[in-house]
Order: sequence, then C-alpha cells, then structure tokens
Amino acid sequence: MDRTFASDNYAGVHPEVLAALAAVNTGHEISYGEDSVTERLQEVVRREFGERAEAYPVFNGTGANVVALTSVLPRWGAVVTSASSHLHTDEGGAPEKTAGLKLFPVPTPDGKLTPELLAAEAWGFGDEHRAQPLAVSIAQTTELGTLYQPDEIRAIADAAHALGMTVHLDGSRLWNAAAALDLPFRAFTTDAGVDILSLGATKNGALAAEAIVVLNPENVDGVVYLRKTAMQLASKMRFLSAQLIALFDDGLGIRSARHANAMAARLRAAIEGAPGLSFSQPTEANAIFAVLDNAIADRIRARFRFYDWNRARGEVRWMTAFDTTEADVDAFAAAIREELGR
Amino acid sequence: MDRTFASDNYAGVHPEVLAALAAVNTGHEISYGEDSVTERLQEVVRREFGERAEAYPVFNGTGANVVALTSVLPRWGAVVTSASSHLHTDEGGAPEKTAGLKLFPVPTPDGKLTPELLAAEAWGFGDEHRAQPLAVSIAQTTELGTLYQPDEIRAIADAAHALGMTVHLDGSRLWNAAAALDLPFRAFTTDAGVDILSLGATKNGALAAEAIVVLNPENVDGVVYLRKTAMQLASKMRFLSAQLIALFDDGLGIRSARHANAMAARLRAAIEGAPGLSFSQPTEANAIFAVLDNAIADRIRARFRFYDWNRARGEVRWMTAFDTTEADVDAFAAAIREELGR
Amino acid sequence: MDRTFASDNYAGVHPEVLAALAAVNTGHEISYGEDSVTERLQEVVRREFGERAEAYPVFNGTGANVVALTSVLPRWGAVVTSASSHLHTDEGGAPEKTAGLKLFPVPTPDGKLTPELLAAEAWGFGDEHRAQPLAVSIAQTTELGTLYQPDEIRAIADAAHALGMTVHLDGSRLWNAAAALDLPFRAFTTDAGVDILSLGATKNGALAAEAIVVLNPENVDGVVYLRKTAMQLASKMRFLSAQLIALFDDGLGIRSARHANAMAARLRAAIEGAPGLSFSQPTEANAIFAVLDNAIADRIRARFRFYDWNRARGEVRWMTAFDTTEADVDAFAAAIREELGR
Amino acid sequence: MDRTFASDNYAGVHPEVLAALAAVNTGHEISYGEDSVTERLQEVVRREFGERAEAYPVFNGTGANVVALTSVLPRWGAVVTSASSHLHTDEGGAPEKTAGLKLFPVPTPDGKLTPELLAAEAWGFGDEHRAQPLAVSIAQTTELGTLYQPDEIRAIADAAHALGMTVHLDGSRLWNAAAALDLPFRAFTTDAGVDILSLGATKNGALAAEAIVVLNPENVDGVVYLRKTAMQLASKMRFLSAQLIALFDDGLGIRSARHANAMAARLRAAIEGAPGLSFSQPTEANAIFAVLDNAIADRIRARFRFYDWNRARGEVRWMTAFDTTEADVDAFAAAIREELGR
Repeated sequence: MDRTFASDNYAGVHPEVLAALAAVNTGHEISYGEDSVTERLQEVVRREFGERAEAYPVFNGTGANVVALTSVLPRWGAVVTSASSHLHTDEGGAPEKTAGLKLFPVPTPDGKLTPELLAAEAWGFGDEHRAQPLAVSIAQTTELGTLYQPDEIRAIADAAHALGMTVHLDGSRLWNAAAALDLPFRAFTTDAGVDILSLGATKNGALAAEAIVVLNPENVDGVVYLRKTAMQLASKMRFLSAQLIALFDDGLGIRSARHANAMAARLRAAIEGAPGLSFSQPTEANAIFAVLDNAIADRIRARFRFYDWNRARGEVRWMTAFDTTEADVDAFAAAIREELGR
Repeated sequence: MDRTFASDNYAGVHPEVLAALAAVNTGHEISYGEDSVTERLQEVVRREFGERAEAYPVFNGTGANVVALTSVLPRWGAVVTSASSHLHTDEGGAPEKTAGLKLFPVPTPDGKLTPELLAAEAWGFGDEHRAQPLAVSIAQTTELGTLYQPDEIRAIADAAHALGMTVHLDGSRLWNAAAALDLPFRAFTTDAGVDILSLGATKNGALAAEAIVVLNPENVDGVVYLRKTAMQLASKMRFLSAQLIALFDDGLGIRSARHANAMAARLRAAIEGAPGLSFSQPTEANAIFAVLDNAIADRIRARFRFYDWNRARGEVRWMTAFDTTEADVDAFAAAIREELGR
Repeated sequence: MDRTFASDNYAGVHPEVLAALAAVNTGHEISYGEDSVTERLQEVVRREFGERAEAYPVFNGTGANVVALTSVLPRWGAVVTSASSHLHTDEGGAPEKTAGLKLFPVPTPDGKLTPELLAAEAWGFGDEHRAQPLAVSIAQTTELGTLYQPDEIRAIADAAHALGMTVHLDGSRLWNAAAALDLPFRAFTTDAGVDILSLGATKNGALAAEAIVVLNPENVDGVVYLRKTAMQLASKMRFLSAQLIALFDDGLGIRSARHANAMAARLRAAIEGAPGLSFSQPTEANAIFAVLDNAIADRIRARFRFYDWNRARGEVRWMTAFDTTEADVDAFAAAIREELGR
Repeated sequence: MDRTFASDNYAGVHPEVLAALAAVNTGHEISYGEDSVTERLQEVVRREFGERAEAYPVFNGTGANVVALTSVLPRWGAVVTSASSHLHTDEGGAPEKTAGLKLFPVPTPDGKLTPELLAAEAWGFGDEHRAQPLAVSIAQTTELGTLYQPDEIRAIADAAHALGMTVHLDGSRLWNAAAALDLPFRAFTTDAGVDILSLGATKNGALAAEAIVVLNPENVDGVVYLRKTAMQLASKMRFLSAQLIALFDDGLGIRSARHANAMAARLRAAIEGAPGLSFSQPTEANAIFAVLDNAIADRIRARFRFYDWNRARGEVRWMTAFDTTEADVDAFAAAIREELGR
C-alpha cells in the first residue's frame, strides 16, 4: 500500500530496527528479561531518564498504561484523565475490564489537563463512596496532537503530589514530544515530577515494543508481577529491548520523530489558509486536526487514506510517520487544495 | 550465551522468520489486522485447520489462552484443567486476575486429562453456588512433555460436549505435537472436536507470535473485542502474521519441531540407563523430565543451564529447541553421565 | 439521634417492615430463594411490573446495579450514564472493579439523560477500540432529585433500542418517583421500554433490601449466577423478600414515599424566596438542592445534620424520609430562615 | 415448613435477634457505619478478640471472605486453601470473578490444612510466573464439619508467617467452633496467630449479618474501601451490628451453637452402629457426614429434607441448627434406622 496519512502505525519497521533484531539474534539468552540486551536497556534508560529509572518492556501501549497504573494504585484507586485520552476512548475498556481501574474523565478543549481541570475530579479522598483518585494520567503528545511544556507538566505534578496522587505519563509518542520540545526526555518527565511513564516505540518505527519506565520507584510496586498478570511478559524479551535500544542509539528515535513532525508542519503550511479548511488543534508534533466538509473529505480520502475524527463536526485527523516523504506531503497537500477548490 | 537445555524460549529467532519480517516490511498497511499479510494468514489457517477456521494473532501464550477461554465462557464460567497445566501453574494468575476465570485444577499423573478426570470437576451444572465448568482446557503437548493421541482428545471432547462444555487446546507446542504424531494439525484438533486453540510459534523459532485459532465459530463469541481488552491487539499486526505464516510455509515449523523432538530423543537415548538417573515422564516431544540427586544436578547445571522442576523430588526438566545441535546433545549427555558417575 | 435532613438512609425501619420480618419467621424455609415468601414476591412483582417481570432480591443498591448491568452486557460492554449518577460518582468504582464495567459518563445539567445526550457516547458500535456502549443506565428519581416523565424515558429507550442498547433504570427511589408521578410502576418502567431495573426499598423504610427486576427477559442472561458471584445472594432470602412485599402490600411504600415527597415540598415552600438562598434543581421528589453561603450552611448544620453537595459552589442537599414530620420541617425551615437572616 | 436437617440456614431468625433489631430502631443514625450501634460492636469485638480487633459488618459470608482476602493481598496474590473449602467450591467463583483472587486448592481428607499441606502450594515466592501465595485461608469449623484445635491453627499460622503469608480464617460457624472447643474466641484466633477472620452470624440465628474481624491491623489495608467496592457496605448498618451484638450479649450465640452441636451429637449417638450406615467425617460440631445407600437416603429424604454431599459415593450431610429440637432429632434418627432396616 502507498504511504497514507491515516496513522503512524500504518508505517512498517525502520530498517535500523530490523537490523537491531538481527544483531541480537545470537545464541541463547535467558528468557523473560534476564538477558544481556535488556540489561543494556536499563543502562540506556538510566542515561536518558535518570539514575533511578527502570525499564520494563511490554508489547503495546495499552499494556504499558494498564501495568503502569496498577503499579501505582491500590485496588480502590481511580485515575483522573482527559476525556479525550487514549486511555478512556481507545483502549476498549481494558483499564476497567482487566484491571478494575476506575477512570474519571475530564473534558478538555485540547486534550491537556491543567491543575484546575485536575481539581474537578481530584477530590473525595478518604471517602469510601468515591473511588479514590490517586493517580493522574496525562499524554505527551496528547491524543489530539498537542504538546505540554515542561512547566505545564510540573504544575500538574505538583498539584497531584500535593494531593497524594501519583503522576503517569502516556508517552506513546514521547519521541515526537522530545523532538518538538527539542529537550532531553528527562527535562519534561523525571525532572518535571512524572513518577512513571509508558514509553512507546511502535509508532516511531519499531515493530512492536513499548516499555513501562519507572522514574520514582518509591511510588511504584509490583511491576514485574503486574506485567506478567497483564499478559505483557515477553519470553524472548531481548527482541523487545533491542527495538527500544535501537531508537535511543545513534539518535534514530529522535531523528525519526523530528522528521515526522517536520512533515506535519510542512503539510500544515502547505494547506493553511485554503478556503473551506480550518484547524481544530494546533499542529505541535505529527498530527493535524482539520475541519472541512465531509463530502470533500471523502473525495480526498478516495485518493489518500486517513480517518475521520468526529464526522458530526467534519473533523479529520492527518498523521505523518517516520517514513512520510516530502513528496507524499506535497502530493497530499495538492490533493487537499484541489478537492477544496472544486 | 551457549545453547542451553533450559527452555525452548532461550533460543533466538529462526533466520527464515527474520527474513519473513523483512519481506513484509514494504510500505504502509492498515493497522490492527486489516492488512494483506493477516489476510493471507487466514487462508493458511483455513488450509491447515479446516474451512471454518479463523486466526487472531496475539503476542504471547497467556494472552492467547485468556482470550480464547473468555470467548467461549460466560462471566460465570469456569475451566477444568490439569493441575500441572501452564494455565494453572505458570501464568501468574492472569486467567483469574484479568478475566475472572475460575479454574478447577485436576491432579493428573502425566499432565493429561481423561474423560474420567474431567468428570471429577465437571459437575454442578445449573447450581449457582458452583462456578459453572463450561470449558475444558487441555495442552498439546502438555506442560510435562506428554502427548495426546487424537482419539484421546476426541474422547475428552465428546465427554465435554455431552455436558455442554467447550473444548480449548493450549497449543504452545502444537508443532512439536504435530511432528511427534506425524499428523496434520486438523487430525488432532478440528477433527478431534477441539473448538478453539492457542497456537504457539514463539517456542518454535518465532520472535513473539501466537494466535487464537477458532475452529468451531458457533461456540465462540467476541474474540476481536476480547483480544483488544486483553491488551493483545498488535497495531502492526502484519509482523505477527508474517511470523506465523513463516512457520507454516515451506514446512519451517514442522521441520524445526521435528528437529527439536529428535534432539530430545537423542538425549534420552544417550542417557537412558545411566545409574542414578530415572525419568518421571515419557519423552514424547522436546522435553525430558528426569530424576536425579540434587547435588549431581547442580554440578551438571554448572556446565549447562537448565531448570529444576520439583527440587523436593529431584526432578529436572531438559528442553531442546529448533537450534539444538547433535553436538550440543552429545556434550550434554556426556556431562550428565560424567557427573552421575563421579 | 434526632431526625436529620442528611439522607433518607439515616431513618430506621418502618414498624410495618419489622412486623413483616417477624411474620415470616416461622419454621424452616429452603434457603437461597426457593422459599415461599420469595415465591410470593414474584407474584407481587408480576402484578406491579407486568407478567414477564422477575424479581431477584439483593442486599443493596450497588449490588442491584452491578448485577443488573452485567446481566445485560457482554464482557466488552460499556454503560452510558449521567456523569452525576450514583453509578459513576458514589459506588466507589464497584462497577469497574468487581465487574469490569466501563462507564461513559455524560455531563447533564439536571441528572437526566436525553436521546441527544445519549448520542454523545452511544457510538463506535463494531469498533474493537471502543468499549461497546451496549447499555444505558438512567435513575428515577435521579441523584439530583429530578424526575423523568414516562415519555422522556420512552424516548431514551426508543433511541437506545434502535442502537441495539439495553435500558437499565436505577430505581433506588422508585417509590418516590411513583408517588411524584402518581402513576403505577409499570407506566414509567415496563411500558416505557425499560428492560431491567434496580428496585430500592432500604431508602423507603426497609432494613436492607433491594431487587433486580427483569422486565424484558429476552435481553437478560444469567442473573442467578451473577447475583451469586456479586456476593449478593442471601441465604435466608425470605427476610429480604418480606421487606419488599411489605412495601408493596397495603400501599406502605407509596404512602411512605408520598409523605417524604410532601415533606420536601413543604420545606421548599417554607424557604422559597428567602434572601441569600437559591435552588440548583427543581424539587420533584424528596430532595432539595439549595445554594447558600458556606458559612451560613455550616451554622444551620450545627443545628440539623445534612451534607454539602458541592462546597465550591455552596450547594447543599436536604433530604426528607418516610419518618420526617411536619414539625421537623417547620423547625428546620425556621432555622434556615433564621441563619440566612443573621 | 417443618424443621429439616438440610442446612443451618434453613432456620429462621432467633427471637432475641429480632428483638435486638427493634431495640435499635429509634430515630436517625448516621448511615454507613458511623452509628452508635456499630460503635458498640467495636467494643464487643475488642473484648472478645483482643484490643487491636476491628469489626467491619457485611451482608454475607462470601462477601466477608472476599473483602478480608483482598485486604491482605496485593493484586498479584493467591490464596492456599483446602480443596473442599467453601471458598473454592461454594462461592460461585466470586473470589476469582469479583476480586481476581487466584486460589491454590489443596486436597485434604478432612477439610483441614496442616503445615505440610500448606507447603504443597506455598512456594515460588518472588517468581513472577507464579501467582504469589501470600495468604492461607482455613475454616473453623470446616466445610466438612471438622474442628481445628488451637495448636493446629497455631502451627499453620507459624508456618505461614515464616513464609511471609497472612492467615485468614473463615468463621462462618465460628460460634459452633467456640462451643465445641469450649474456649473463648481469642484462644483459637487472635492468640493462635490468625490475622483476619470472617465472622458468621447468619447460620447461628441472625437474619443476615457477618463481619470481617481484623485481628492484626499491620497485615491489613483498605478494608473500608474494599467493603464498598465489594458491594458489602450497608447503609443502615446499625441493623447488621445489632444482630452481631445480640449473639455476643447474654451468650446467645454460644448457647445457640452449643445446642446445635449437642443436637448433632445426639443424632450421631442415636444412629451410630446402624447397619448400612457409616460416617465419612467425625462429628465435631453441628454437621454429620454419613454414607449410606442412595436409595435408602432418598427414602429418608422423602420424610426429612437434607442434601446429598457426594452422590457418587453415597455421602450425605445432615446439619443441625439453633432451633433443632430433641424431638426433631429423635424422629429423624428413628426414620433413618427404620429406612436402613427395611
């Protein structure tokens, strides 16, 4: 299939990631994470996120989120999250169904929580009638393609910690955020007060690999057991760890994310101001949320695949990936302008 | 690390599987299973398991088991299984913890259920005080390395169906079973009355890929939803499907399993009759369960890695894999005889 | 303790209910619901809710809600409900934690859903990434003391059924609703398209008794099993059934609810127009939601116990019960006016 | 219905318990456990179980067991219990389904665990592949009517504690045990090393009341939240507490249990040695497990209701209750002898 603007997970595997898989395919290794590759991953993660950081590779993002959240919450805990978060809208109810996690979704205009929005659901501590909102989960970048500045994360973390809550960050597109902020990971995670995060690699050129990264071990318990019961424990774990390492080494991950972000910016610039087109969110990483007539969107879609986001209001999502080319963008922009102009 | 006799999941990825990953890494594909590779997997699975078969790729065996069992059971259902099954002993409680599956474990001498053993827990239908034992789960080969003959499976399936129960088969080593029986898959699955199975590939040379294979769709509901809520839905699914196809195509899977089985037989033959050594299970596929003095076992282990199975009774497990060589076996057998003879 | 305006569950047991317990305390009865009293309850419930109605007594309202909702939903199901519903705000996360129920809470001004509000979350059918919103749960009266008219319920039920959804009604204060509407139960439940409901008795003078009432058995499965696994199966069930019957017989329930509603109306009338006091909801049954200065509320509370509802906006809740007297109301109203006037 | 030998929960409510309900039915009380009656229960429980004891009333025994076990276990915990325990065989899978509790059932001849039997499943600590067996649950009296001596409980508790496990005791018939042992409760609970117990009252003359009694608060967390999420929190809790207090006060509970036990002893004495009759368990409290021809059992059952325990081996269970009379026993014994003699 030609490259699309549907999702960064339509893309395949970056050749350097495939090469990394082959490179670790030598002889036997102890299974379930006691291998030398996973050991090396720990070093990389400590380098990137700080000396106390620990990485636990898993298969996918929902798995990372659920394991991370259960490791910071008692059975009676609940999670405050944006109503548009992947956690609430796009995980099929896995948090509730496999882990009994109660969510308190908060409506937000741009997918971003603030201390004020957090306060809307962070109450009732000590009251047994209310699932205890002992964690907050934010995404970076958000499901709406928006980006937190480090001080915005810090403000949420401070507010949460003051209430005795733990801070989880869903980083399925953490590399896109790092690229957009042009900051090292720890500047907007560990140093901003995040306790635990889900680190995504699949959307950024891996085959299937994510990790729970514990930043503040004092607030976390039982990750190894919870990863197992969440069915996220890979027997041949070295091949997950190798994917993650590949993105860190030689800057592959940040290069790929910068490219994807740049392609989104290029697309937005190329169509900005086109008559009949507006944007419902700023383009801060690799997603564009645009509003246009459904019929026009459908004509464009007949030429390039992408998804409606909210058909009732004519909102569509255009995603770029590590493999999107300038030519792809230019052709797509031309098609958009052409169909808008008919 | 040198090759060991610890587990078939210490082995790496078969080079043909890696090649298959590279081969499907071309351009964009729709994510979450609507890709052309997964479509091709369906054809392969229908060819191997019958016209009604449907495959749902997942990440690992526990995931396959849990999704399969929830797809055949109501919320109030329970599973009769061998007390030594992976499901009961080695999944960290995932069936109970993520899916509320009640297990009725039945003690067995060799890991194999029979209609009589099934009857020990398959009762109380209609009684709300008893979790309803509406499924039976058997493994082929079993966790103890033993093998069901097709008519043994058929007898269990007939007994189960007569009681209104569904039959699940945990096939984490299904290729080893097919190789040992020298029969096509369907002869001892679909044609023997199995309703749904977990098809393992990872232990047989894949990187990380298993599948739920539905054989009798009438007894199964909601697999696509349950796979998602069990956090087993891969975004770039083509790469799971490609691994599974690779094992089917050109007979890679059956060749690998035959080899592993042959290496176990070679090992057993080489040490059979050694003084101080006995066997607690027949060697019917790629596992040897041996009994010897703990101190001697530890001396052997200092040279070749393997696991105790039950240290209280001096039982150890020796596994062979697709990559075990004759030289590995001969060196290991020599070490065993040497240490036993000291 | 003197009578309060805190909650209808601060009240004790109506003497007629205690008498009913003594009346069925004769000799042995089969346990777990096969007793003669529970049999009689079925007749009463069929008389009140229609010929297909079935009653399943349970201990409390959360239990009734969870059992009812699991009996109409597959494991991948979700529930659309008002964001202010007891189900979402006041059950400690029991729906999620014990039953894996995903909730889609919808903000509402008055606790009432409408077909339009339902549509905000009733979408994504067939998409495995979205927990399937296959049930809607409304409350009558609502957690905010408001009341649905029968045609409002019918409109929601029609919209839900058209989408393949099932309709649950949380009737913890169903008698108050019947009294307020001056209609038989079936007029605004069975005949309005409700499939299953939770029938409360405790808040209306019982000791501890609620029931799941199935109205449309075609959409319901496994209630007897689910009641057991939800730990809501009473061994000496006759004593639950007797409480429920006591409310139906001789009109005790409707008399009590009419009285409680009248006391709320009397209170509202007595304080309406007091300076510094406004009302955030209409008073349609036995709850008054008032807004006043926190400091004044606290002074009143020093004299009569009641709860803040939302301290940030100065909202309090005043409840009346079956045992509230006119003198109680008049004294409370005087206190309110007095403290407002200081 | 005439009195039967089917179950102690066929009996009604002891008149003194009904009187206690009426006695606390005075005015308003704070709901959900902050009432004066529940406060008084705490004093009683401290007197009976020791100064650190805390009581949490709930509705039924399954509820008590599940709340107690979740309060002492992390999400990855499992429970070692007798294979014949109520927990494993008679709770419909509630522990697994509502709380994700993995059970490791151990076959026992008489329903009683020992340190040796415990050791059969209490292993694998620290191994993520094994649900962590961090609690043991024993019943006193057992589901087979047998009785632990205090030193037997102490031996299990010592073994469990040495392994880092917590000790739960299912005391649905704790009064029968106290009566049989002629010892105060604490002698075989608190002082024997039990950490938490389920205290049953319903089978001993209450209407519907049990309690979780925490004996060692250091090993317990979150009971108030877990009781709520397990749907076991009564709004009008004073009426549960009053039932429990009634059994403690004036020795009603111990009198009732002594009587029930005496009736079982009388029955056993009256039929001991009858030709065609044997006993599969000792009669140590209020249960008799007898073995006789199924056809004869059915003829007896036509005259007095009771349950088969295991029809395959001709085993039946005869229970006595607080209201069983000597005349009941003598008539039943005569019927048994008569039918055996035909």
